[in-house]
Amino acid sequence: MRFDPRRYLGSGDRYSDTGNALRRTLRLISASERKEEARAFLDQYCLESGATKTFKNRRWSEIRRELAAAKFYRHSPEELAYGARVAWRNHGRCVGRLFWESLDVTDCRDITEPGAMADQMTKHLTSAFNGGRIQSKATIFQPVEGDKLPARIESPQITQFAGYRLENNQIIGDRQNVEATRMAMSMGWTPPQTPTRFDMLPFAIRDAQDVRSIHTVPTEAWHAVSIAHPTYEALAALNLQWYAVPCVSNMILTIGGIDYPCAPFNGFYMATEIASRNLVDKERYDLMSEIAEAFGLDPRRDPLWQDTTLTELNRAVSHSFKRDGVTMVDHHTGCRQFMDFYHKENALGRNVSGDWRWLVPPQASSSSDIFHLKIRNRHDVPNYYQSRSADGQFLMPYYGNAYRTRRQQNFDRIMRRWKLWKRMPW
Amino acid sequence: MRFDPRRYLGSGDRYSDTGNALRRTLRLISASERKEEARAFLDQYCLESGATKTFKNRRWSEIRRELAAAKFYRHSPEELAYGARVAWRNHGRCVGRLFWESLDVTDCRDITEPGAMADQMTKHLTSAFNGGRIQSKATIFQPVEGDKLPARIESPQITQFAGYRLENNQIIGDRQNVEATRMAMSMGWTPPQTPTRFDMLPFAIRDAQDVRSIHTVPTEAWHAVSIAHPTYEALAALNLQWYAVPCVSNMILTIGGIDYPCAPFNGFYMATEIASRNLVDKERYDLMSEIAEAFGLDPRRDPLWQDTTLTELNRAVSHSFKRDGVTMVDHHTGCRQFMDFYHKENALGRNVSGDWRWLVPPQASSSSDIFHLKIRNRHDVPNYYQSRSADGQFLMPYYGNAYRTRRQQNFDRIMRRWKLWKRMPW
Repeated sequence: MRFDPRRYLGSGDRYSDTGNALRRTLRLISASERKEEARAFLDQYCLESGATKTFKNRRWSEIRRELAAAKFYRHSPEELAYGARVAWRNHGRCVGRLFWESLDVTDCRDITEPGAMADQMTKHLTSAFNGGRIQSKATIFQPVEGDKLPARIESPQITQFAGYRLENNQIIGDRQNVEATRMAMSMGWTPPQTPTRFDMLPFAIRDAQDVRSIHTVPTEAWHAVSIAHPTYEALAALNLQWYAVPCVSNMILTIGGIDYPCAPFNGFYMATEIASRNLVDKERYDLMSEIAEAFGLDPRRDPLWQDTTLTELNRAVSHSFKRDGVTMVDHHTGCRQFMDFYHKENALGRNVSGDWRWLVPPQASSSSDIFHLKIRNRHDVPNYYQSRSADGQFLMPYYGNAYRTRRQQNFDRIMRRWKLWKRMPW
Repeated sequence: MRFDPRRYLGSGDRYSDTGNALRRTLRLISASERKEEARAFLDQYCLESGATKTFKNRRWSEIRRELAAAKFYRHSPEELAYGARVAWRNHGRCVGRLFWESLDVTDCRDITEPGAMADQMTKHLTSAFNGGRIQSKATIFQPVEGDKLPARIESPQITQFAGYRLENNQIIGDRQNVEATRMAMSMGWTPPQTPTRFDMLPFAIRDAQDVRSIHTVPTEAWHAVSIAHPTYEALAALNLQWYAVPCVSNMILTIGGIDYPCAPFNGFYMATEIASRNLVDKERYDLMSEIAEAFGLDPRRDPLWQDTTLTELNRAVSHSFKRDGVTMVDHHTGCRQFMDFYHKENALGRNVSGDWRWLVPPQASSSSDIFHLKIRNRHDVPNYYQSRSADGQFLMPYYGNAYRTRRQQNFDRIMRRWKLWKRMPW
């Protein structure tokens, strides 16, 4: 008998690593794992929404039947909204989870056409901005139905600034987006006559056939906050700005075994994201020296010029957002909110999981309570994930250490890591 | 047959968790694991010192014979010095490892009496201070020989400031050392007439019979640096100070399967250790508000007062050490040195392991290159460890991914975690 890799990789359709990029990104779960996650989600949903046992039993037989027939079941709108909120609550890298219950979920599972999706995202941005009082929102498009992949947004965020590589290899704008800018230009997007550091990029959608299209964010759908410092006036001359609403669009939402590859969501900014990372990171705008100069700091004479620059830039960003009436927290408030969330969840008997490296702010870290917290990232489902290889492989239901023993959980993990289940008949 | 826990825990002498505190702290390794580590260490030593094959073979038969007879073998002075240096190089939580080769090792394995050990530590402190140009030194006392435990130093550092709990539950001094201060006083140490924030504590030694004695650090053996800011003169009025030489004394050095529970070592300070942690942490001196006031900052009006305080305190600490001519690095220099070490080791074909959370400075974190580094902490031996339960259980030799396959290493790890090897006949 000849060697056939598909025997080891499962059926060609579901498991093969060829095909479109989304298929390589989705996490691989077996039919029994999907069923387990569906059950765990239903249990949690019924527990927290106070549903009756009758409802649960009826719903479970529906789900089981649908799963057996099509490796897929359709969430009710209530399940979907609850799932998206709990996915936020479970996501270890987010520091702003205190407001998880206020997430506004729009069910757009019947919108499948890229043009209509782009229009929907414009509406999302406008209503999320809400005149400055930013509202956390998620818009959820089609899920993966068995082997059928839906359209999804390819850009990491809806609003992103372009990055241009000049002929002398200098870069204007956001270094992170140089490739996305090149791609957009090759697809017919024309940058302004004189490119600036802050040109809004169009975002890319891949339809169900994996065909890419680009879509412009209308000027009235996003708000630019120009950065000025309350005392150092030289900063305003640099003409820095940032957009008000961060809307993450390439993370995959997974609820009860069903993946929603297109579920863009937004929160509001913490000042450090812009001031300590986006504007100064070497792989982003790399403006540390320029900004330090505006603050009158001399790198040759002051060894801590970067510390002062970062603090003052944080002050400037907070000040500018406040001036424009746009929601934003500084890192001290953000950390306090996270600690509130942490204690609130603990009081409700729920264990908070978190990624310490992401939660601790990159600025005055040890002054925040999170720095001194011992916290583990458990990757519970429902959750949002980047890709199979980055974090998708770790996702599994958490039963509060009761359902499965520690040893059983370790066994599950080994099976998963070594990909043994791929070779099992289930 | 009656239930005998020793059947499961191994022989009462080696594995029982009773007895003195050191026995509960030492990591548990089986005879075959010890032999494996001894071999791995010998291989590494011979490789890096360029020893001949004849030497290696002869030495290995010696070691094997000694191990079989007494569960112990004696390192040669060269092996000991090399082992202590490599233990530093391997220690994932240290950011200053660029200078690992310059560690000065004093072999004091024949000093067993607490009084003589304390004298030796006085000599260590004086020669490490070296008039301000701090020299990294390690003094190595008796190892664990089979079942025989040696004397060791109980205090976490040789030089530490006292912490007094007053009757109104206020604390003067270092909160971390309140219990150690109470203990020292109960053993006859008298604090100064008027206790201050910075009274030097005596350090405690436990002899081989687990009897505790306390030993004063002579005034001439430690140097206090008083903290002043180059421009804000109000800071000097707070009378802050810190000692010049941090000498860690409660970590266990493990080389080739042999544990040295008393191997105190010193390096020099990075400014953030004092300015961003010791003086301001809520569990240490908790002086954030007091220092902010000295800098003229108003917490009610400035949301980022803590950031400015930390930056200026870092500046003050660096300035004061420099003024006294005492070695110190700021966090930017420290991170650059670590990156030098990282690239140097990689160029030599050695993989650097590190604990990201400890390496990234607690101040302007994202401006350091370490923040953007993907690094794993492998816990290679030789190494320094805190205790069996904190990090000792993770320690194992690293063969550069060549000796044992990934899967074998995972198997080793599972056996170790689940303590399966305890029940195995080897």
